[in-house]
Formats: sequence, structure tokens, C-alpha cells
Amino acid sequence: MLRQVAVIGCGMTKFGRHDGKTLLEIMVEASLRAIDDAKIGERDVDAVYVSTMLSGELSNQTALGSALVDQLGLMPAAAHRLENGPASGGSAVKNACMAVASGFCDLVLVTGGEKMRHISGDRITDLISTMVHPTAEYVHGVTLPALAAMFTRLYMHRYGLKREHLAKVAIKNHANALKNPYAHIHQPITIEGILYAKEAEVNNPLVADPLRLFDCCPVTDGAASVVLCAAEIAKEFCDTPVIVAGLGQATDTLAVHEREDPTLLKAVQVASQKAFKMAKLTPADMDLAELHDAFTILEIAESEDSGFFAKGTGHKALEEDVTSLGGKLPINPSGGLKARGHPVGATGVAQIVELTWQLRGEAGGRQVQGAEKAYCCNFGGFGNNVISFVLTRRN
Amino acid sequence: MLRQVAVIGCGMTKFGRHDGKTLLEIMVEASLRAIDDAKIGERDVDAVYVSTMLSGELSNQTALGSALVDQLGLMPAAAHRLENGPASGGSAVKNACMAVASGFCDLVLVTGGEKMRHISGDRITDLISTMVHPTAEYVHGVTLPALAAMFTRLYMHRYGLKREHLAKVAIKNHANALKNPYAHIHQPITIEGILYAKEAEVNNPLVADPLRLFDCCPVTDGAASVVLCAAEIAKEFCDTPVIVAGLGQATDTLAVHEREDPTLLKAVQVASQKAFKMAKLTPADMDLAELHDAFTILEIAESEDSGFFAKGTGHKALEEDVTSLGGKLPINPSGGLKARGHPVGATGVAQIVELTWQLRGEAGGRQVQGAEKAYCCNFGGFGNNVISFVLTRRN
Repeated sequence: MLRQVAVIGCGMTKFGRHDGKTLLEIMVEASLRAIDDAKIGERDVDAVYVSTMLSGELSNQTALGSALVDQLGLMPAAAHRLENGPASGGSAVKNACMAVASGFCDLVLVTGGEKMRHISGDRITDLISTMVHPTAEYVHGVTLPALAAMFTRLYMHRYGLKREHLAKVAIKNHANALKNPYAHIHQPITIEGILYAKEAEVNNPLVADPLRLFDCCPVTDGAASVVLCAAEIAKEFCDTPVIVAGLGQATDTLAVHEREDPTLLKAVQVASQKAFKMAKLTPADMDLAELHDAFTILEIAESEDSGFFAKGTGHKALEEDVTSLGGKLPINPSGGLKARGHPVGATGVAQIVELTWQLRGEAGGRQVQGAEKAYCCNFGGFGNNVISFVLTRRN
Repeated sequence: MLRQVAVIGCGMTKFGRHDGKTLLEIMVEASLRAIDDAKIGERDVDAVYVSTMLSGELSNQTALGSALVDQLGLMPAAAHRLENGPASGGSAVKNACMAVASGFCDLVLVTGGEKMRHISGDRITDLISTMVHPTAEYVHGVTLPALAAMFTRLYMHRYGLKREHLAKVAIKNHANALKNPYAHIHQPITIEGILYAKEAEVNNPLVADPLRLFDCCPVTDGAASVVLCAAEIAKEFCDTPVIVAGLGQATDTLAVHEREDPTLLKAVQVASQKAFKMAKLTPADMDLAELHDAFTILEIAESEDSGFFAKGTGHKALEEDVTSLGGKLPINPSGGLKARGHPVGATGVAQIVELTWQLRGEAGGRQVQGAEKAYCCNFGGFGNNVISFVLTRRN
């Protein structure tokens, strides 16, 4: 990129239920927190990027970029909405970065959000499935949980992954979320409770074999927001700007069955390699990572294809607590999609928020001590659209 | 911008009805034409930007960026979808320009499209209205035709505009569209037929007083596509690159009644001033313009607020044939939204296609002789999100 970009402000709503508030209202709340955090004073915001996957379908509102600019009184700031499935947030952050890097903007607000809890789970699953292949998958009832289940089965068969590993991702991320006041789920779980106990079958029912309820992220309302600026002016606003050191994006085949090796998330590999190359860093340099664990299996697979662990060994690292808070590479200290929640359009932005808080040392009880470099991976479709970022603390 | 951008390829489907084809299929058709036109050979496309307003609502498909990359076999190109109401196309072109200008990409495909004809007109009007103010306008039944009608009434009252002026916009644009093989409407109309004849009330019924059927753009299926690259490499692909000399964008209040002067399209003013300033050119330098005439009144109002004519005098210029083919500043030689048609997500891209064809001298019977500089204005919401471009031929 021709010009470096910094994150100077962050804000989120509590993830969870926001009955009685509109999507736009929760986006305003997150935006105001980020603007306040960025201490931009009277300075003009040049552009606003909004990410939401389903605002038209779920909230009967389109062109939300302009609506947010209006509500925040930021006219005449340029307004855009990105929709890129679950990678909408990363897509908005990336385009905002390029708006700054191109010299076209100096100061940009990015706000992602989704309001989903007011709609039935069946309808949500159907709407989210509109991103899979329309004729090879969707019409046959292949939803996202179905794809993730088949992917998990193959993983178990090929790499010796067991249901206990999946459960451990959930247990770890639920534990992390207890330390995150913004997380949707504040519920400690145990392997006994979700797998071995007599009532486990009832408490943790099958969703799509072998995935159970606690293997799937919840349906969540929420919004997250960041303020970006040209790195050369970042110190005007804050003492601890966080630098967007690297970013990468890649697309894979839409239909999962067309991939040579369906267990390989090639777009994760390519996107992460691009991000690390741009940052001139390696996976081993990272102090923490936020991965897109919409299903427990995805945290494990992404931890491998992002370059942290060899293929088929992610569950070993998990087993050995490498990815727990206090381990060598904490993954999803925020609680991840699994427990912080997954308001689809907010997720990619919320990952940047968590990384920024961690790099600033503001992550409270879940702080990764001395974190200076961090990675996140926002995963769209079933791995067909992946956007990775490497963020670093400027010392 | 830190790096100049050029248009090196264009393609469109015929605008009209595309029964039996999906939105994705017509986008593929336009994309292949643009890629073929750009003669990029084996060179990789770095990113694909898709614009569509209502793909989820009308075609049950989201995340269309990845789907298009997949269909075109352009993996691992980065994929994004922009939704910005009727300004979606301009929004996609603008972000693609910034992707190149930032140094992040060298070669980018932008494809806009919408498939709308398979849905009832009432439902279309309702879905398009999801971009107006949700509580101040939408819930009161204020649709886009209703807003345009109130705007027209005020214009008539204040500036002496008559229904004959509105009719003349339609007649001129229908005549231009007869020379555009891609246009939806190939139907010559006369003032006698649509206003004075006994059967005019039947042929041209009221939609929202004073606007009649022929004052409103049709509901259209179609897709349009451009290939952009860094200007410094444009000559590798074509002899006549067209330069994105200027671009500007602005947001106005979402609710029209909140504007100090509701007849003033402030976002058009700001966006065009920014575009002209960046291009170091003035409205007087332009050889033609494509304006966003979703309703006849909009061509007149935008011709004023873009800086071509003083406020309240656009209809005089129209009367004097200044804006007709052969006049000093032909407006909408393509037929405009009025007659080329308005597949919402395609429109902003189709404007760039028309400007490029005109600047290359490839516009056939509607060619503006010797055109070297051209302007377009993509108008979202009811003027709350406007994106203007100035394109020039590199000699």
C-alpha cells in the first residue's frame, strides 16, 4: 500500500439481544463509542463504511451507509455499505484502509452490525445459506451447519480429531468470554456437561452430526466500530495507534465439493500469506489471533491454514493449551464467534476491535500480556472469501 | 489520489428482460465482454467488485462477489459486493479505483447488475423504498415516485417548469435510446402521444401527480461491467485508455424534508465540485454528461446542481436543445435511466461504460463528435448519496 493506515478508535455494543432497538440504532451506539475513543474532536470524517449482510432482509433497510452518516450528522462524508457474507466486516475494513491508503481519505469510520434475534432460527439459517452455491448446494438443503458438519466428519476421519477437541474449543472460548463484558454468552461449560453427563444429549443436542449446539455460534445482535486514519497523522489523536501492518484476501471455489482437498481452506492460506508478507512478519511472530469460529471446527482448521500449526495438528495445540489464555498463542481471547457472538456484519470489525484493545493493553481480564502483534481471519461463505489482517502496536 | 486509474475495458448485456437467466448469469455475460474488450490475456485480475442493490431480496443470493469470481474462474481474486441503493454502481467503481490508487491492486473488474422484472411492480417499489427514511418517510408510504412527485411540484411552483419540460426529457431520451442497441426501451414517443392526444391519459397515466408513466424509468434487468487498471500500465492493454480524472462523493440528509431547500440537491453539488476539482476541469469543459434520470425531473435538477446550468434554468437549456444530441452538452446520449433502463445496481457502472464508449468514439449513431471529456452522476436514495465522475480521453 502506498500509505500506511492506523486504527485510532474502537467501540462496540454489548453483543446479545437488542430488542426494541433498530439495527441503525445499535450501529449509532458502536460508532459514537469509536468516535469518542478516537478523540477526533471537530475533525471531519471523510468516509463511512458500513458492513451488514442482511439489513434489507432482516431489518427492511438498505443503503445503510447513508443512513448512518445522517444519524451521526457526518454529512457530506462519503457513505458505502459492504455485503460480503460473514466477511462483510473485513471487507469494509479493507476498503476503508484502501480509501486512506489511496490518499483519497484521511479519516474513516467503519461500522459493522447485524440484528438477527427477532427472526426465527430457521429463517436465519435459510437467509445465511443464500451465500452458498445456488444450484450445487442451496437447492439441496446444504446449509452452513451442514457444510461444517461434513467438513468436520472428514477432518475426524483424516486427522484423528475427536469430539472432545471440538468441545474444548467451545469450553475455552466460553471461558474467555466470561472475561469479556461485550460477549453474548456468559456461561461456563464443562466437558462433563456438554458431552458426558446423562443430560448432555438434551443440553447439547445434535445440530448436524457430528456438530452439536455448543459447536455452533449463537444468533446475535450487535455492532462494532473502528476509526482508521493515515498513520502519519495518528499521533495527533492517540498515544498508542495500532498499525494495519498487513492485509490479505482470497477467494476459493463457491461449491465446497469442487475443491481438490475439501479439508484445506485454501483461501485462508492465501489470504494469511499475503497479510504476513505485506507485514514482513510470520505466524510465529504473532502474540494472539482472533479466528472465525462460527463452528468449533473452523477455529482448528483456520489455526492450521493461517500458518500457526501444520495441517492436521491444530487439535494437538489446542489439547496442549497452546491456544488458551496464558498459552503461547491465545486464540479468540474475546470468546470468538462461539461465545462473543456472531452478528454477521459486525464480526470482521469486532475482530479488529479486539486486536486493537489487546495491542493497547486494554483487554482487562483476558489481556494477553505484552501483546505487540496480532492476527485475525474473517471467513466468508464456507471459506470462499477470506480476509486476514496483521495488526501491530507502534512503540 | 496517489496513483491514476484508467478504464481499459467495457461490457454490457442488453438491458430489458432476461427471463430464464439468473442475476449471476447476466453478470457473467457483462463481465466476459468487459474482460474480452480489455484484452488482458492471461494477466490476473486482482479484485472483483460487484454492485447490486437487491440480490438477496430479489434473487435469493448474497455475497455475489465471491460467486462471480468463482463463475469467471478468477480465484483467488479478492471479491467484494457494494450496496448503496441506486448509487451501488458508482460506489463499486469508486472503491475499485481506490483499490488501484492505493497500490493494492493493478487490475480490477467491476460488475453491476440487477434482475427485477420477475417481481411485481408494487413489490419492487416497496423494496426500493427501503432506502428512504424508515420512520419519517417509509412508514408513511413515501416511496421514491412520491418523493420525486413532491420535488417536481415544488420545482414547477418555484422555477416555472411545465409538464412539457418533463415530457421533453422523456422524448429526448427515448430518441437517444433508439440509437443504443443496449437500451431497454426502443420506442419513439411524441408530446402529442404522451400529453395532448385524447388517449394520452390512458397511454401515459398518472403515477404520482404530476409524474406520469413516461416520467419514470422502467423496471429493468441488466448488467454492466468495466475493467480498471493503473494508468501507468494502461497502454499495455489498449491504445485509447480513458482516465478517471476526477471523482467525488457526498451524502445529504436521509429525510428530504430536513433539507433547508428541498429543491437543492446539495450532495450533487458537493460531489460534482469535488470531481471537477480533482480533475482540474470545470463543467464548461465537458463534452457530454450521463445523469441519473430515474425520474424526468432529476435530469433537469442534476444538470443544474452539477454546475452545467444556473439553478432553475435547466429546463430552459432543455427547451433550447442544448442537452440534445448535437447540442452543446448532450445529456444522456445512452437514453439514460429513462430509456436505457435502470437495473439498479448496474446503473452507475453503465454510466461509466457509456462515457468510455463515447470518449473512445465507439458510440455509433449516438456518438458525441470529438468527445474528450465527460461527466456522470450516480444518485442514491433521494439524493442522499451521490457519486460523480469526470472521465477524459488520453490523447
